[in-house]
Amino acid sequence: MADDTPIDWDASYAGRAERMRASEIRELLQLIGQPDIMSFAGGIPDPELFPTEAVREAYSTILADPRNGPNSLQYSVSEGYLPLRRWIVEYMTRIGVPCDVDNIVITSGAQQGLDYLGKLFLSSGDTALVTAPTYFGALQAFNPYEPRYDIIAPEKGNATPAVYREAAEAAGGRVALAYVVPDFANPTGETLSEEARRRLLDLVTELGVPLIEDSAYYALRFEGEPVAPCLALDLQRCGHIDRSRVAYCQTFSKTIAPGFRVGWVCAARDLIQKIVLTKQAGDLHAGTINQMVVYEIARTVYDDQVRKIVATYSKRRDAMLAALARHMPEGVTWTTPQGGMFVWVTLPETLDGAELLAAALQEERVAFVPGGAFICDGTRKNTIRLNYSLQPEAVYDEGMARIGRVIARHMAAKGTSGVPRSSRAA
Amino acid sequence: MADDTPIDWDASYAGRAERMRASEIRELLQLIGQPDIMSFAGGIPDPELFPTEAVREAYSTILADPRNGPNSLQYSVSEGYLPLRRWIVEYMTRIGVPCDVDNIVITSGAQQGLDYLGKLFLSSGDTALVTAPTYFGALQAFNPYEPRYDIIAPEKGNATPAVYREAAEAAGGRVALAYVVPDFANPTGETLSEEARRRLLDLVTELGVPLIEDSAYYALRFEGEPVAPCLALDLQRCGHIDRSRVAYCQTFSKTIAPGFRVGWVCAARDLIQKIVLTKQAGDLHAGTINQMVVYEIARTVYDDQVRKIVATYSKRRDAMLAALARHMPEGVTWTTPQGGMFVWVTLPETLDGAELLAAALQEERVAFVPGGAFICDGTRKNTIRLNYSLQPEAVYDEGMARIGRVIARHMAAKGTSGVPRSSRAA
Repeated sequence: MADDTPIDWDASYAGRAERMRASEIRELLQLIGQPDIMSFAGGIPDPELFPTEAVREAYSTILADPRNGPNSLQYSVSEGYLPLRRWIVEYMTRIGVPCDVDNIVITSGAQQGLDYLGKLFLSSGDTALVTAPTYFGALQAFNPYEPRYDIIAPEKGNATPAVYREAAEAAGGRVALAYVVPDFANPTGETLSEEARRRLLDLVTELGVPLIEDSAYYALRFEGEPVAPCLALDLQRCGHIDRSRVAYCQTFSKTIAPGFRVGWVCAARDLIQKIVLTKQAGDLHAGTINQMVVYEIARTVYDDQVRKIVATYSKRRDAMLAALARHMPEGVTWTTPQGGMFVWVTLPETLDGAELLAAALQEERVAFVPGGAFICDGTRKNTIRLNYSLQPEAVYDEGMARIGRVIARHMAAKGTSGVPRSSRAA
Repeated sequence: MADDTPIDWDASYAGRAERMRASEIRELLQLIGQPDIMSFAGGIPDPELFPTEAVREAYSTILADPRNGPNSLQYSVSEGYLPLRRWIVEYMTRIGVPCDVDNIVITSGAQQGLDYLGKLFLSSGDTALVTAPTYFGALQAFNPYEPRYDIIAPEKGNATPAVYREAAEAAGGRVALAYVVPDFANPTGETLSEEARRRLLDLVTELGVPLIEDSAYYALRFEGEPVAPCLALDLQRCGHIDRSRVAYCQTFSKTIAPGFRVGWVCAARDLIQKIVLTKQAGDLHAGTINQMVVYEIARTVYDDQVRKIVATYSKRRDAMLAALARHMPEGVTWTTPQGGMFVWVTLPETLDGAELLAAALQEERVAFVPGGAFICDGTRKNTIRLNYSLQPEAVYDEGMARIGRVIARHMAAKGTSGVPRSSRAA
């Protein structure tokens, strides 16, 4: 009774599956594998900077221990490895967030923190407040819970709580959360001022909603004074983390290495308990031995590791900014990040980042990420994201020259000027 | 402007959070830590059987390699590590499921497969068909997607498709999926006959819904011939995995070790692509180096490892069954598993497993899991689950004697007989 009818999976899925779609960025990552493409598309750290030898020693030491060894391969609690949570408590205290182990849950990267917070707070039709652009992976994490998005602009000026609330109600839901990447944001590289953070806290407090602070790049500051995390600023107001409405997501992916899938959420104890239940139902716990190894690395070389990464990436940022100044046509502008991994480039309005990428790959064998994927309302397609964490310093001049040429050709074709600055200077 | 009002998180959560509750079982795991409690409560493998030394060597070899080392700590694709997926393809072919790497996605344990499949198929109010009892972690994974449950009994007789469909529609949804643990099920230890599997396939085919086959214990068969997985039986009907409606979830947790969090789903290519998107949005990918290490262990010692576990657990099962026969009062019955980790004990109807546990902990310092947690409709509270994977052989006689005494006392108190068989025999 063989039945040749293919199954109509789309008809079987829940409504939320409609919004789970392939990511342009993840698809593009496959281009990195092609050796003749010069890629500024990725958002991944330089593996040469991983503390690989220290990691090898940590695995070996833990596994050679007669008691720790077998236990490191066993099931463990959903909250996470206690010594690692204690280390995180010290870290959080150091950055202005005194807290307790009950305020920490270990997640499989910051990404899982976003998924689980979306799962906890978003019902279909609810509104999530995000910046435009924002981290594409956050939109991907939230989308299956079927929110609509409304836009905050903490630096330039948010709308009033009433405006957000009325728009949410008109759309049949409520404002359920706000999400922000305050430091060296993916994709813009920009950092929110303390004033902007306070305005954002005013907004979420008046709206009575949680603020998800995605602090993935916080440690990668090249220069200038750190701005206090939103969570730290909120503690100054409310007096204790258990009264804060900020859920702070962090990760060891940018400071130690991403392949462990170890990050954390720091928040009010009641919320952490609910995330622990979500984790228990979702995948039981983060990898046991990986948490132990990350603890060992964090305990011994975290600060050295951050210094090494900052020293390397800051020189690459300098190289990229200098090359942009040399090779971008007039009419093109870009951000000047004080840390992180990304520069955000704005092209003349007639250009489209996705069209430009297709041409760049074909004509100049160079890659970047079109900005449109990061913008929830589909505007500002005249943008691209450039990454400087992966390519060595020597590559940026040639890379930006290639991108500059493609942009210039597109500008000329669209009747914009398009003369590279370097040609004008010559 | 300190504000002492605590945040009402319950008012902020989405409706689905209502159904994320603490697990009695996970809470009980904490009892294992108390040295004077003799525990048959856990569902965890014996860490002494982990291939710890081989794992140590695998981590060390991978990390010492100049190219593999750093890459093993890097981000990787959401589908999972290709050589591991190739190994799984060979494994699946060996157990009657010829397939391709595009039919495999690596998940963080089988648990994450259940979460993601629930996310893909269940809308609020939909019906999930499950056995009673069933794996509690599956109910936990599905609950946040707000299904109702209806009960299948593949061995004793399912209801007709029309009955399930009408009940689902009356409840305002549709039948969205069926879920089963066909081999040495958690919690009963029972295995579905091939006939029962075929009846189940008839049912899901007529209903037009996916069947989630949770095959976590499949490899742990102590004796007798393996029964073909539902997925293998479905392939005999439909001719090709890409036309099958079975989503097969497996894990290395019971055969190698759970602390890696590495499992997989094997299913039609279209469905796998959707799970990959779910994984990408959820936590990007399973731990890179852990997948590489699991591949190395699977490639070299998988079969040896399974033989070692089977040899050990089967003797412990024998010891438990013999001790149950000696110490359980008349009126108590239990299953005779051919593999896996669990025996399911049915008490006289007047007894309650949860009340019994409270007494057992206090009076006899012995632990097990009350059966009620595994039963979606709240019936059959007169059951308990006993685990035999963790305690050495010598412990079962004393352990079952303690449990037998508590049961006998409760039976006497409720006016049932309650004389232990051993006393009667003496």
